[in-house]
Amino acid sequence: MRLLHEENIEDIALGAAVLGTGGGGDPYVGKLMAREAIRQYGPVELYTLDELDDDDLIVPAAGMGAPIVIVEKLPAGDDMIRAFKALGRYSGREPRGTMSIEAGGLNSVMPIYVAARLRIPMVDCDGMGRAFPEIQMTIFTAHGITASPFAMSDERGNVLLMDTVSNHWVETFARSCVVHMGAEGMIALYSATVKQLKEAAIHGTITLAEDIGKTVRNARRQEANPVDAVRKAVGGFLIFRGKITDVDRRIEGGWNRGDAKMAGTGDFAGDDLLLEFQNEHLVVRVNGEFAATTPDLIAVLDSETGEPITTEALRYGMRVAVIAFPCAPQWREPAALELAHPRYFGYDVDYEPVEERYLHHSR
Amino acid sequence: MRLLHEENIEDIALGAAVLGTGGGGDPYVGKLMAREAIRQYGPVELYTLDELDDDDLIVPAAGMGAPIVIVEKLPAGDDMIRAFKALGRYSGREPRGTMSIEAGGLNSVMPIYVAARLRIPMVDCDGMGRAFPEIQMTIFTAHGITASPFAMSDERGNVLLMDTVSNHWVETFARSCVVHMGAEGMIALYSATVKQLKEAAIHGTITLAEDIGKTVRNARRQEANPVDAVRKAVGGFLIFRGKITDVDRRIEGGWNRGDAKMAGTGDFAGDDLLLEFQNEHLVVRVNGEFAATTPDLIAVLDSETGEPITTEALRYGMRVAVIAFPCAPQWREPAALELAHPRYFGYDVDYEPVEERYLHHSR
Repeated sequence: MRLLHEENIEDIALGAAVLGTGGGGDPYVGKLMAREAIRQYGPVELYTLDELDDDDLIVPAAGMGAPIVIVEKLPAGDDMIRAFKALGRYSGREPRGTMSIEAGGLNSVMPIYVAARLRIPMVDCDGMGRAFPEIQMTIFTAHGITASPFAMSDERGNVLLMDTVSNHWVETFARSCVVHMGAEGMIALYSATVKQLKEAAIHGTITLAEDIGKTVRNARRQEANPVDAVRKAVGGFLIFRGKITDVDRRIEGGWNRGDAKMAGTGDFAGDDLLLEFQNEHLVVRVNGEFAATTPDLIAVLDSETGEPITTEALRYGMRVAVIAFPCAPQWREPAALELAHPRYFGYDVDYEPVEERYLHHSR
Repeated sequence: MRLLHEENIEDIALGAAVLGTGGGGDPYVGKLMAREAIRQYGPVELYTLDELDDDDLIVPAAGMGAPIVIVEKLPAGDDMIRAFKALGRYSGREPRGTMSIEAGGLNSVMPIYVAARLRIPMVDCDGMGRAFPEIQMTIFTAHGITASPFAMSDERGNVLLMDTVSNHWVETFARSCVVHMGAEGMIALYSATVKQLKEAAIHGTITLAEDIGKTVRNARRQEANPVDAVRKAVGGFLIFRGKITDVDRRIEGGWNRGDAKMAGTGDFAGDDLLLEFQNEHLVVRVNGEFAATTPDLIAVLDSETGEPITTEALRYGMRVAVIAFPCAPQWREPAALELAHPRYFGYDVDYEPVEERYLHHSR
């Protein structure tokens, strides 16, 4: 167990935003909420799975919807606590702790808020090692852990509970409700025992995020190349450097959907890039050819500061670097890959691990 | 208390379909389910509110969605029981009995199924004295009784629970979910104590439905005019007689929506009628002028048998009579009228009680 203090939050939110692959919520909003909670309620105890009892029940907490709305309409915090408590009441079991369901600027740190306010432990793991736009897209689903009982609340005080026959049904019902909530709802889901999590969770995600954040911060301080520092920290590949020439983004079906076009600069002069997203980056094409696809991670970084740019922050004229890096190996198992395959998202392309693809396609 | 046997069901379903004003579900489906339940589990005890303790908790049970789907895809029954039990579990209180939330061919008798199968009493009252297409449209809403906790289940086994800040929010969330359930879900809602119901419910609806059904049956047997018998039994007015010349009906937003056109015959030769519906009949115009509007009741009857025709059964060429009759007086109180005013449904017309309107407009 170690304590998370206010000063840990900055690095975690930054690193988690890299892993959030464009989604997972805005790191600034997440940072504000987590910091404020720690300031008010004290530091949060971060446990590894090995430090907890196998029977302990852990309930992840997160925000759901279109991240661009969450930036404009800050979560109140009460809605998150309301969803978390509703799930505990419904289950009839007191949650021992909370955790992140995904890595992302908001969703990695939202459980820090819950842990601080309810004075319960947070566990250093998550269900994706990245962020994904749909509820059933977790390693948990591939391991038979159910998203339901599922609880959702909004700023008005509405509470929805779902007990469904599959994780896809939670996605279907919750997505249609979150649209009516104004594309922003706070959720608690995928309750699991520590024993289940030892097998199915991705371990150490918070610490990994913090390490990535620290790396970027150090690179900046040493006036080194922060983009290269991130790339090395995640074991990734530089796909592109250039300028954003067009962004098409809309709120559709409770997600941010759209694409961004870029024109290459430097080594990439004359090349063009097309990045498509549904909350998270799904695929990236360079000169019309796939350069990386889901479930591998694609991050857009500010080319000077290495700061990850979420899909809602992409703007015309930004100078950026695009890196791609391997997903957690669990995503490459058949049952998991099916959940997040490029074909699931409508791309008629085989999945090729980014490290192999990169060897074939890069200059 | 009196017992409802198999032989009571026919009259109740028929009379309730008259009160269902085109909606409230298909009487044939309702009849089958209730009869089968009584055959299997024994007769149902029907109580008046005065025969129960003020503190007893009563939970209405119903079907929600587009009635045309429910005809094609019979409710399994298990889904209804699942919703009812989920609500009891969530409330932490054992329901003492059940009741109809609305009058209608299916929704009047669905609680008979629940009462028979769970061996609990049914109460002779409802929340509308007719049927309406949206969840918040009850006399209960006008009396501050909440639709939530609300439970909903489908044939697959999905269970949704809602605890919302207003009855409109239940409608919003549940409607969007029922669309994904294939426009058919079974629901439990508006739990209330007998004390609350004594003030807010419409008393004696099941007995009224049975009386109407009996009247039609007797009129048929005596070769009298069943349409006129229904008209007299409900204190109504004959608005039209004619032939259906056009039906436009679609499943939209989890409802049957559309309209029917008719050409007059007999005394009404040369006249035309336009009937618009959203599950239930909303307004009827004769020769372009409003002849009756919500919240008053409009029933389309087979001109020979007096059998009420639900919106999903309207067909080109049918020979029908259209009658209109006054809603329960509670609907004319301001708080209730606002919930079901023609303007709520988008008709730019003042509400004029049908008995007054009829005096002005009819021949």
